[in-house]
Amino acid sequence: MTDRNCTIAPLTLTIEAQSGRARAGRLLTPHGVVPTPCFMPVGTQATVKSVSPDDLSNVGAAMILANTYHLLLRPGPEIVAAHGGLHCFMGWQGPILTDSGGFQVWSLARLRCIDDDGVTFRSHLDGSEHRLTPERVMAIQAQLGADVVMAFDECVGYPATHTEAAAAAQRTSRWLERCLDARPGPGQALFGIVQGSTFTDLRTASAQATVAADLPGYAIGGLSVGESKAEMWRIVEHTVPLLPAERPRYLMGIGSPEDLVEAVRLGIDLFDCVLPTRAARHAGLYTDAGRLNIRKARFRADLGPIDPNCDCATCRTFTASYVHHLFRAKELLAYRLATVHNLRYLTRLTERMRAAIAADAYEAFRDDFLAKFRAPDARERSRQQQRWQAAQRRAASSPAAQSAPAAEC
Amino acid sequence: MTDRNCTIAPLTLTIEAQSGRARAGRLLTPHGVVPTPCFMPVGTQATVKSVSPDDLSNVGAAMILANTYHLLLRPGPEIVAAHGGLHCFMGWQGPILTDSGGFQVWSLARLRCIDDDGVTFRSHLDGSEHRLTPERVMAIQAQLGADVVMAFDECVGYPATHTEAAAAAQRTSRWLERCLDARPGPGQALFGIVQGSTFTDLRTASAQATVAADLPGYAIGGLSVGESKAEMWRIVEHTVPLLPAERPRYLMGIGSPEDLVEAVRLGIDLFDCVLPTRAARHAGLYTDAGRLNIRKARFRADLGPIDPNCDCATCRTFTASYVHHLFRAKELLAYRLATVHNLRYLTRLTERMRAAIAADAYEAFRDDFLAKFRAPDARERSRQQQRWQAAQRRAASSPAAQSAPAAEC
Repeated sequence: MTDRNCTIAPLTLTIEAQSGRARAGRLLTPHGVVPTPCFMPVGTQATVKSVSPDDLSNVGAAMILANTYHLLLRPGPEIVAAHGGLHCFMGWQGPILTDSGGFQVWSLARLRCIDDDGVTFRSHLDGSEHRLTPERVMAIQAQLGADVVMAFDECVGYPATHTEAAAAAQRTSRWLERCLDARPGPGQALFGIVQGSTFTDLRTASAQATVAADLPGYAIGGLSVGESKAEMWRIVEHTVPLLPAERPRYLMGIGSPEDLVEAVRLGIDLFDCVLPTRAARHAGLYTDAGRLNIRKARFRADLGPIDPNCDCATCRTFTASYVHHLFRAKELLAYRLATVHNLRYLTRLTERMRAAIAADAYEAFRDDFLAKFRAPDARERSRQQQRWQAAQRRAASSPAAQSAPAAEC
Repeated sequence: MTDRNCTIAPLTLTIEAQSGRARAGRLLTPHGVVPTPCFMPVGTQATVKSVSPDDLSNVGAAMILANTYHLLLRPGPEIVAAHGGLHCFMGWQGPILTDSGGFQVWSLARLRCIDDDGVTFRSHLDGSEHRLTPERVMAIQAQLGADVVMAFDECVGYPATHTEAAAAAQRTSRWLERCLDARPGPGQALFGIVQGSTFTDLRTASAQATVAADLPGYAIGGLSVGESKAEMWRIVEHTVPLLPAERPRYLMGIGSPEDLVEAVRLGIDLFDCVLPTRAARHAGLYTDAGRLNIRKARFRADLGPIDPNCDCATCRTFTASYVHHLFRAKELLAYRLATVHNLRYLTRLTERMRAAIAADAYEAFRDDFLAKFRAPDARERSRQQQRWQAAQRRAASSPAAQSAPAAEC
């Protein structure tokens, strides 16, 4: 372990305040300090869709995420490495986290064959065959050069049987050992991922095995994959106390305002989700009253800002009427202005959470927020998700990918 | 005329330098000074596609254009007027010019019926019927509130017979009288448009009738509609000397780098064209060597900027490889970065032209520029135009517009 530990980057979390289980802190990374709780916008293909690095700085984004799976397929990690890594490639000088590709292999790639060594799959872009192993994932992430890299994990869908979930969680633990042996790149911090689906005994075992590796940070994976919110929170509430207090805790794939508020209450520090940026591109804009649809006719002549309480560049510069017009006219600027608004909303929300924690008044803040914020119900969420998944399948699967032969198992 | 003249805005051109027929000056408008020659980016729907007002300022754009026809259909001039005009609506505080809708009625709208009073047409968006007359065009442009408004004109396609071209030019002159009687809005300067297709006698008559109105500026319209470059330059060279030297001269719909350089040589001050922004969105980027296609495989690992001589934000921040990746991945940021580059290229080109004129060395500059700049030949230009027109027809015509009954004549 000593040999391994010397490769762990100087990623340190300082807890500055607590309120119940909620905590506010500062995460020191090689590319700067990240105030926590922190929502990380997702830059799947080395760009947060529709915004520039300057836009990200202006909304107050502290840290972003990029996807190993997508960058492996295009442009290829060797291109990113030739630039000296993602920071230079995409012009973002703040901290970056790359996922391991595990989740995308399960959700996007076709015809995956898994064995204890790794996964073989076909690209959703062109049907080309690829193989990921823990060693390969660490090597790719070293080429990408993010500040935080994630261990390669096996995800299961929902529902999964206890047997399936146990096998995947145990494989994830074995792969973590191999990720450690393969070592992250210089200056990179490796986070482990707790799996175990909705089974508390499996979550306990996975957390124990992961924490035993003494990592600079821990993620809770395999949630928000179809289970109910109640089940999700039950698992988060069960798992958080199993993770060391002095290390950052990252809840993967979570990012709606109401979920952020709830997760912070349970002791989570880091989040990522495509929802806020995707919703923005579909005219869904956040306010404290909930998500509004700026395409609706009632905004046609609305000369006020989208949200009078918002300090984003969009709300400071343009009327709701103008943003409505841009969406109706399918103008590209619409997507940028909406994305800027949603990202600023979330960043400001984390700032408000930090203030409430500093004042030891988080529970009241959370109750007040959730009383006002009209979240979509389960049926509406499911409809939104299905619409998106259908669009995703149509858009992402090229004819080449569709007609490619099955990956040989 | 005295009564009319009192409505003419204080739009004044100061000629600072001349080199042959080329001239450099400053156009004073109610929203600021425009150094000439000036290329005006086109903001058809009250947004220059893919960029923000800040981006426009940063590339050095001095004045932009918006389209009366498009804004009439969506969002409607009353919405823009409720904002206090286009400047507030779109968040651009520099000078704006609106066209009269004449050209779009001919090129985009369906089923137009023209008589001496005006034009009835169906929207390309939803098939709804609209009518434009000189009086209505002036009223709409007053609602839009641009600094410069254009007289309502009748365009003819190419080729046109002498009879057709004469009738349209004469109608344009009669309509100019009605535009003057209808008066521009407070602070607005009305430009007249010289028509006459490719017939020099008609151009002479049209120029004389237009100049007789003693307007604050003059445009040459009806070019770049299918005629050869040689024919276009013959008409420009014929027409410019018929316009008063102390007033701005605007060549409508011209905007490729090589055309700008040639038109300035003939004494033109103002330009607009969708080409530079449209080309950008199709990966066509300007350099002094010509237009390159950043999607080409040779840029995949190009770690230099798109153009080492360019000072735009894109070239200062990102590699050609990264922009290539964004285009391949169909990321929205691609269109913005490319548009910023092309607009900065053209603004810088006008700066270089101004410097050459100030040094009384324009002819040498022009010869040098055209010797290096590989312009697409007539066949390639025609191919590009046909591809775009086909895409435009597919994208712009809704099922509603397609199935609408003919406008009654």
